[in-house]
Amino acid sequence: MSAASDLSLPFYERDICYFSPNGASLLLLDQTLLPAEERYIAVQSAEQVAEAIYKLRVRGAPLIGIAAAMGLCVALQKAGDIAAFAVAKQTIGSSRPTAVNLAWALQRMETVYLRYLQTPAPHSLSTLLPLLREEALLIKREEAQRCEAIGTYGSALITPGMGILTHCNAGALATGSYGTATAPIYFAHRQGKAPQVFADETRPLLQGARLTAYELQRSGVDITLLCDNMAASLMNSGKVQMMLVGCDRVARNGDTANKIGTYGVAVLAHHFGIPVYVCGPTSSMDGTALTGHDIVIEQRPAGEVSSLWYRHPMAPQGCKVMNPSFDVTPHELITGYITERGILQAHELFADGE
Amino acid sequence: MSAASDLSLPFYERDICYFSPNGASLLLLDQTLLPAEERYIAVQSAEQVAEAIYKLRVRGAPLIGIAAAMGLCVALQKAGDIAAFAVAKQTIGSSRPTAVNLAWALQRMETVYLRYLQTPAPHSLSTLLPLLREEALLIKREEAQRCEAIGTYGSALITPGMGILTHCNAGALATGSYGTATAPIYFAHRQGKAPQVFADETRPLLQGARLTAYELQRSGVDITLLCDNMAASLMNSGKVQMMLVGCDRVARNGDTANKIGTYGVAVLAHHFGIPVYVCGPTSSMDGTALTGHDIVIEQRPAGEVSSLWYRHPMAPQGCKVMNPSFDVTPHELITGYITERGILQAHELFADGE
Repeated sequence: MSAASDLSLPFYERDICYFSPNGASLLLLDQTLLPAEERYIAVQSAEQVAEAIYKLRVRGAPLIGIAAAMGLCVALQKAGDIAAFAVAKQTIGSSRPTAVNLAWALQRMETVYLRYLQTPAPHSLSTLLPLLREEALLIKREEAQRCEAIGTYGSALITPGMGILTHCNAGALATGSYGTATAPIYFAHRQGKAPQVFADETRPLLQGARLTAYELQRSGVDITLLCDNMAASLMNSGKVQMMLVGCDRVARNGDTANKIGTYGVAVLAHHFGIPVYVCGPTSSMDGTALTGHDIVIEQRPAGEVSSLWYRHPMAPQGCKVMNPSFDVTPHELITGYITERGILQAHELFADGE
Repeated sequence: MSAASDLSLPFYERDICYFSPNGASLLLLDQTLLPAEERYIAVQSAEQVAEAIYKLRVRGAPLIGIAAAMGLCVALQKAGDIAAFAVAKQTIGSSRPTAVNLAWALQRMETVYLRYLQTPAPHSLSTLLPLLREEALLIKREEAQRCEAIGTYGSALITPGMGILTHCNAGALATGSYGTATAPIYFAHRQGKAPQVFADETRPLLQGARLTAYELQRSGVDITLLCDNMAASLMNSGKVQMMLVGCDRVARNGDTANKIGTYGVAVLAHHFGIPVYVCGPTSSMDGTALTGHDIVIEQRPAGEVSSLWYRHPMAPQGCKVMNPSFDVTPHELITGYITERGILQAHELFADGE
């Protein structure tokens, strides 16, 4: 808890998703309140965990996986019955469809659960829960290690003073560690390379303005905020030499689902000759999706667009609204994938034949 | 005044910029209050006219020109002295730098003024003002005629059910008539072609959401709102066959300054093979600017980006912010220019050797 509440730490040293001391609650930094307020919420039931994910109190593909796995532990303790596993997994798993980490993390938890059930009886929560908690914390620790590896590989691409554009938040706030797209930036910053970072604000929910600008500023990184539609103007000015974005799910051919708007800036980067790197742990790679066509894109409520964040109507009543939460950037527009296994090309992502 | 206050009229039949009966005030629909409220403000002094333009209470290149010319009349009457012309022109003329219509309309007013000064004395406001008002109303009438011609030419490009993307507001609210980019849409709508219109919301000030979606919805046109960063996703879906945008200033080579974001969607349209038409009266063409490099781009306050429209902070305090009000789309990305002289190519814009 001390790491969580120490506001003087750079964000990547904060803990934004952790168990309460007695293990009964999961404490989450409520990201919908940023940048105005840093407040943690405590969740216990599967419904509360799902609500926190659906409402984006906790978001970012790796962090969704971590929160889901840890959330399953507290939900089961709250239910008080090991038979509640299936329903809790179903409730949490259906909260959002696009990030593969959610299904992947819950699958790992289920593997532990099924293995436990095959051990000799008697079975009880008190013997199951430590195993589940251990697995959830292992997932969390592994994601942090992946972020560090991404930071090591990615920062090697960054030259002193380089201009870097990012979209949405694939930061410490999306992973609980160095972030994915921000890991190379944080590493380069600590190496004294003084990267010049530009953050698309990322409508409709402004994760770039509220989260990325916030955590980079709080960590001492040079950051400039722009509206999404200013990216062409920025690129034309020559101030950007690289794009770094995260990913919610990467298909076998390298097509990448990420926050809505990624496709557009990737097309612009291609037009202006700027390389585009997707940063992501292999936990965001989905070998079962052959191409982007196999990725389900979540459609979110119209009010997120027409009423802004603070509920003021900004569009005429009853106006039809588009609100896809993600788009799929075709692999042809992606220069490389910065993963914990190194900087890969699309055809190398699943080179193990997985 | 009846046309102004009759809310049942489609927007293109409303009068949103007119003299009060005694000629002492200019009444303007305050566009900063839309879509929540339709309220007219009365301005009299040159400072009030300039404030209304700078604060975007009245905006859109053609309407800025009309309001400036009409505003000069009320400002001179308020000053009570024909010698106040130069200062009033300077005050109003310096309110915004990018739209050429502002300088162009004030220049026309000055020509009338200088011609009047060459007539035999005595000179007085009571004999000057009718000449100035006549010229200002002529400018207004001519802009309306140009919009109608743009509507006639442009609607011929629209096939039944065609999907059309527009950016910002180049509508009735930007001209006082059918608009420029909206004129082909309104004409096609009245011809029963049922165009399917998509409006970029247009951050930071959301003219697409607040104004374009509003006036098209109020006029019975099928309209769907999207965030600027959803345009690539929309285009990739195959639902858009044409882009129609307005212009604030077109250089001699066809490079076009328009609301920030136009450049980006033009690059996207090029990528997806979608034609891009710039709609504009020749009053927005500036033969003295050889290319887009000669066009001054207005930089606006950071708070428009970081605090949203209703003053809620959405970015961390002190964060650096980009806020160029316009960008310049290179002529290579523009399929054609729909003007009152017909649908032109870049090399035909100034074919008269002007």
